[in-house]
Amino acid sequence: MSTPADLAELDRHIAVSRVDDGRWSADLRAAWSVGGGLNGGYLLAVLGNAVRAALPQTPDPLVVSAYFTAAAVAGPAEVSVEVKRTGRSRTTVAAELSQQGSARVSALATYGDLAGLPAQVLTTAQRPAMPPVEECVPSTLAPEEVQAIAPLMSRFEMRFHPEQVGWAVGSPSGEGVLSAWFRLPDREPDAISLLGAVDALPPVTFPLGMPGWAPTLELTAHVRAVPAPGWLLLRHETRNMAGGLFEEDCEVWDAAGRLVAQSRQLALQPRPA
Amino acid sequence: MSTPADLAELDRHIAVSRVDDGRWSADLRAAWSVGGGLNGGYLLAVLGNAVRAALPQTPDPLVVSAYFTAAAVAGPAEVSVEVKRTGRSRTTVAAELSQQGSARVSALATYGDLAGLPAQVLTTAQRPAMPPVEECVPSTLAPEEVQAIAPLMSRFEMRFHPEQVGWAVGSPSGEGVLSAWFRLPDREPDAISLLGAVDALPPVTFPLGMPGWAPTLELTAHVRAVPAPGWLLLRHETRNMAGGLFEEDCEVWDAAGRLVAQSRQLALQPRPA
Repeated sequence: MSTPADLAELDRHIAVSRVDDGRWSADLRAAWSVGGGLNGGYLLAVLGNAVRAALPQTPDPLVVSAYFTAAAVAGPAEVSVEVKRTGRSRTTVAAELSQQGSARVSALATYGDLAGLPAQVLTTAQRPAMPPVEECVPSTLAPEEVQAIAPLMSRFEMRFHPEQVGWAVGSPSGEGVLSAWFRLPDREPDAISLLGAVDALPPVTFPLGMPGWAPTLELTAHVRAVPAPGWLLLRHETRNMAGGLFEEDCEVWDAAGRLVAQSRQLALQPRPA
Repeated sequence: MSTPADLAELDRHIAVSRVDDGRWSADLRAAWSVGGGLNGGYLLAVLGNAVRAALPQTPDPLVVSAYFTAAAVAGPAEVSVEVKRTGRSRTTVAAELSQQGSARVSALATYGDLAGLPAQVLTTAQRPAMPPVEECVPSTLAPEEVQAIAPLMSRFEMRFHPEQVGWAVGSPSGEGVLSAWFRLPDREPDAISLLGAVDALPPVTFPLGMPGWAPTLELTAHVRAVPAPGWLLLRHETRNMAGGLFEEDCEVWDAAGRLVAQSRQLALQPRPA
C-alpha cells in the first residue's frame, strides 16, 4: 500500500474518502486555480476519482459528461454517486460535486474496464504533426506574473507547438488550434488523469487573439484506452465560434501514438477586455 | 392555437402533458422504431420537448447529454425534469425518460434562448461538399423489407451522397463518412427537431461494411442556432474505432449554410453477424 507521502501530487489532490455508500469527501486544492477559479479538468478528475472509488468492478471512465453550474473554490467538497444502471461490463452513474450543500458540477458517466476491451484498433485519425518535445516552447517561459495568477501551470509540464504559441508574446496565430506536449512531473498518465488533461491547456481562444476566461458550460470526455507511459500530445481545436459560444475539441494522443481520449466542450466566448 | 390535427407528425409524436411541476407524460410511438428498438434521436426529441415545456423562459436546448441505459418501447413514458441551476439566460436540468418506473434515458441539459444570442458568426468550419438534392439517393429506394423493419425511415426524407451509399447495394465505401440531405415532410426544422436529426441517419459503420445495430451509450448535442427553413445537410464521421467502441460525430448544416448543430456519440461497434 502506498502511504500519502508516496503518492504523486495529483493523486493526493484528487483523493477522496468514503462518507457512506453514495457519498465521498474531497479537499479541493488552491494549487489548481487559474485566475481565481479552480480548473475544470481538476474538478473532473476529482469527480471521476470518486466515481472510480464507488465502482471498483468498473474502475475506468469510458465517457463522462460534466455540466459546470457554479464556480468551485479551494476547500472541502463532497461528491455524490448514484448508480443509474449496472451491467456486466459497464456502469452508468449520476455524480455531483458540491460545496456547502450547493452543486458545482453535475455529471453523468459510464464506467467500464479499459483493459478488458477488445484489442482491435481501427482508428483512422492521424496523429497531428508536432515538433519534438525539445523544440517546443515550455510553459515555464511564461512571465512570472502570469504564473502567479495561474498556479495550475505549475502542476504539469507543457511544451507548446512553436507556431501556435504566438499569443504568449502578443502575436496570436489567428487559427483556432493549440497543441502541446503534456506530462505530470511525478507520475505516468492513467484514465483518471486524462480527465484532467483534456481541460489543462489555455483556451483555444488564446491563439484566436481572445485572451480572458472562457467558462465551460459542458464538457464530455471519451476515454478510449489506458495511455502508454510518457508524454501526451494534446490538440485543441475550435471550428464553430458563433452566438457568443464556441466548441472546443480536444484529442489526447499517447506516447505509443494512440488516440486515447477525445473531448468536446461548449464554452462561453471571452468578453472583450 | 393549433389543434392536434394541425400539428406536424413529429410534434404529435413528441407531445408531452404536464403531470406535476417536475413530471411530464408522453406516448412513445412505434412509428419511430428501427429493428425492434425506438430511435435514440426520437427519444432525445421527446425528452428535449419535455424540458422545453418545463422551462418556458429558456425554451431552446443549447447542449444535451443523454445516456441510453435501457431500450425504450412504444407506449406510455414519463419524463422527469429537475432544475440544477437557473440563471438569467440559461437553465441547467437533469432529465430522465422512464417507462414502467425504470430509467431508459438519463440526461443533463442546459437550455437558453437561441434567438437571444449575439448575432456574430465566426465559424471557420466549411460546409462539406455535397451534390444537389436531386442528384442524391433517396431512402425510398431501399428494399421494401428494409423499410418494413425500419418504420423510422418513413418519418423523414433522406437523400444520400451517391458516393457514400454503396453499402445499400453491398458495396460499402470503406470510409467512415455518411452524408445526407434531410427534412421532415410536413414542417420546417427547429431546435427540438435537430435533437432528432443528429441520430436519424444509419450508423456511420454501414459505409465501413459493418451492418447491424450500433447501440448508443452516450450522445451529446450542441444546438447552436435556430435552423433556417429548408433541407438540412447531415454529415456523420467516425475517426476512432477501437476497443469495440466508436465515436460518431454529426454536423448539421442548415439551408442558409450555417453549422446549426454538432453532436458526438459513443457507440458500441456492431458485432459481426
